Amino acid sequence: MSEFTNVTVVKKANVFFGGNVVSRTVIFEDGTKKTLGFIQPGEYTFNTAAAEVMEILSGEMEVSIQGQAEKLIIKGEGVFDVPENSSFTMNVTAHADYICSFAK
Amino acid sequence: MSEFTNVTVVKKANVFFGGNVVSRTVIFEDGTKKTLGFIQPGEYTFNTAAAEVMEILSGEMEVSIQGQAEKLIIKGEGVFDVPENSSFTMNVTAHADYICSFAK
Repeated sequence: MSEFTNVTVVKKANVFFGGNVVSRTVIFEDGTKKTLGFIQPGEYTFNTAAAEVMEILSGEMEVSIQGQAEKLIIKGEGVFDVPENSSFTMNVTAHADYICSFAK
Repeated sequence: MSEFTNVTVVKKANVFFGGNVVSRTVIFEDGTKKTLGFIQPGEYTFNTAAAEVMEILSGEMEVSIQGQAEKLIIKGEGVFDVPENSSFTMNVTAHADYICSFAK
């Protein structure tokens, strides 16, 4: 499925790291949210409140998740889970397109 | 109105100029489309097929539209129309958040 249907989209962009990470918020009929985001090359650390699932649609990066020794290498598509109240670092080497899903 | 409701959003980003201009396509119930986009500082020229309305939500730029001698300066919010089968150049000096509406 290449689209989300019957959703609400917030017009204003979510802008982080001086515009190097930018996303749009999509709200679903059941009240859950996802963000569709784009990341410029660089290293970025995010904290989580709720648990998150990061689905990488394209791009290249190395991902470190707090408390996990092993780093994740993503080239092209990939997915990783980040627990609630945690953090993760993405070292992006080729700009990336992602979907972030937030646990209810 | 800060949101678009009952819309379809294409998951994959539209990526231009090596990732410096990135947008998401939003499709409305009447079949019309808009894109929600973000522009990094730099100079970019776009061609139009259908006429477009560019609504700048934030950012700073100088806009030149083909065939129009006068340049448009936008600081913060602004809007401009581009005829069909034309072109426009945006010289962006502070990253910009925009909505592009396409004529049917």
